[in-house]
Amino acid sequence: MFAAIVSVGNARVKSAVRLKESKARRRENACLVDGAREIERALRSNFKVKTLFWNAGSRVQADERPELRETLLTSGRSEERAREIEALALKVDATGAPTIPLGRAAFEKLSFGDRDEGVVAIVEARTATLEELDTMIAARAADRGEAPLVAVVEDVEKPGNLGAILRSADGAGVHALVVASTRGEHDVFNPNAIRSSLGAIFHIPIAVASPSEVLAWLRVGGYQRATALCDESTPYTQIDYTRPTAIILGTEADGLTAIWSEETPDDVERALLQKVRLPMLGVADSLNVSNAAAIFFYEARRVRMARRQADDR
Amino acid sequence: MFAAIVSVGNARVKSAVRLKESKARRRENACLVDGAREIERALRSNFKVKTLFWNAGSRVQADERPELRETLLTSGRSEERAREIEALALKVDATGAPTIPLGRAAFEKLSFGDRDEGVVAIVEARTATLEELDTMIAARAADRGEAPLVAVVEDVEKPGNLGAILRSADGAGVHALVVASTRGEHDVFNPNAIRSSLGAIFHIPIAVASPSEVLAWLRVGGYQRATALCDESTPYTQIDYTRPTAIILGTEADGLTAIWSEETPDDVERALLQKVRLPMLGVADSLNVSNAAAIFFYEARRVRMARRQADDR
Repeated sequence: MFAAIVSVGNARVKSAVRLKESKARRRENACLVDGAREIERALRSNFKVKTLFWNAGSRVQADERPELRETLLTSGRSEERAREIEALALKVDATGAPTIPLGRAAFEKLSFGDRDEGVVAIVEARTATLEELDTMIAARAADRGEAPLVAVVEDVEKPGNLGAILRSADGAGVHALVVASTRGEHDVFNPNAIRSSLGAIFHIPIAVASPSEVLAWLRVGGYQRATALCDESTPYTQIDYTRPTAIILGTEADGLTAIWSEETPDDVERALLQKVRLPMLGVADSLNVSNAAAIFFYEARRVRMARRQADDR
Repeated sequence: MFAAIVSVGNARVKSAVRLKESKARRRENACLVDGAREIERALRSNFKVKTLFWNAGSRVQADERPELRETLLTSGRSEERAREIEALALKVDATGAPTIPLGRAAFEKLSFGDRDEGVVAIVEARTATLEELDTMIAARAADRGEAPLVAVVEDVEKPGNLGAILRSADGAGVHALVVASTRGEHDVFNPNAIRSSLGAIFHIPIAVASPSEVLAWLRVGGYQRATALCDESTPYTQIDYTRPTAIILGTEADGLTAIWSEETPDDVERALLQKVRLPMLGVADSLNVSNAAAIFFYEARRVRMARRQADDR
């Protein structure tokens, strides 16, 4: 067991705190993950946990070596919760990564929001390339015995929205998510994205690329592109989601950039571009982007499940 | 035109600022609405706008009477935006409510978030009773030529989620939303709820009541209750949404309280309680509540549209 760190000025603590900033995350290809469930999900998807910090409370002394389970129970955590965190610490330990008790003040520098989850980890922040994604998608599609199904979000603004989209995509069995970034990069592993994904961010394969790269990749892959647009488009229920499909969503403020709706004279290409819209029967002309995404993902899943049932009969 | 207020200590300003607190909103049955679009939507749904404040910039002097459009254009707003705000001010003026220019510092006390929308209003905060809702639902159902369709959310935690749910419900043509509150009350008109609803909060009828009151009301109304539960439930696609339907959702943390899944020996009642679930194919066992709501609302709308089309043939 490692000795406790109580100073908020400790180098390990300070370097971890820096990962709250996007720049540090990019530089170090690492992120902060708060909560046993989320860290567990990272581990299970083979993300490297570099350091695990746990909250040893306000009474721990520097260089003390507190016993994890006992400390957690004394600090008022349930038996179940203490066991869960202990199991996680053992797993991290087995990978050779340090498991470090922190005094409460130091711990609070690292954790986010109101809830004290008891553990925070430094985890590698890794996305896939589009090429790597091909392999992952093929494996997932084969597992489910269905055609590829991916989500593309362009320039999603709020990390909380990206997290909710990842959670819904994962729930609906979407095989991968691509962030099409007009700036060519995207800070996927923002703490709010991790939190609101409930750890799905580690389970669903993710790639970041420019819109033109993503579009070229989708064309080569023969994906039908269900492109969410408000005007002059087909109801979203009228396309065949059992085909290899990419569901493509833009930002709430500006929608999708022009590249996504450019028509070409090529017949094959024309058939792949499907401009689709959600019915909007109220006062607003659009939905929250994560809500729109959820509706599309689950409609694709509904159609695929229905087709499967029909085939089984 | 009213004289400008520049002091942040002005009584009108201070009393408006207090509406950022839930307690003041309840005491005064009023709320703060930020943005021309949202205020416009309140007006259109016959919510009384009590005062309109507009941003007259940092150079305005106390008791000056700045001309609205000119000031907005000088402060760098687009012609279109200035016209929009002017039209709104004229409408509010026509109702007899004051339209007050504020110095920038005073205005910033009232507005929320980063974006400066140029206008903030004090608007009455009004919900309907369940009885009043009956009439509103009947009118909306008749308009669409369909059976009643309502949403019930129990104790929704985050105002932003409630706003997104209202936006999706309105978009899907849900006739009304009921907040079932175990505390018997709910602060519906939180600024974040208003903002994230994009003003739909004023368009869709809303009531707040205790879970037992809501359940009794649904029973009297003969609603099938599509009750979102994780376990031992039917796929959400396997019920008939063309019947009078209530879609019932609990909190993300705790789900629905027990009252919603209690079985009774009564056959009619048993047929009305439909326990439904979304497929969860990934690592998480639930979705963000607003995403789950959006999927349910749009599935109900899809089925109703499909039935309509079949009937029309």
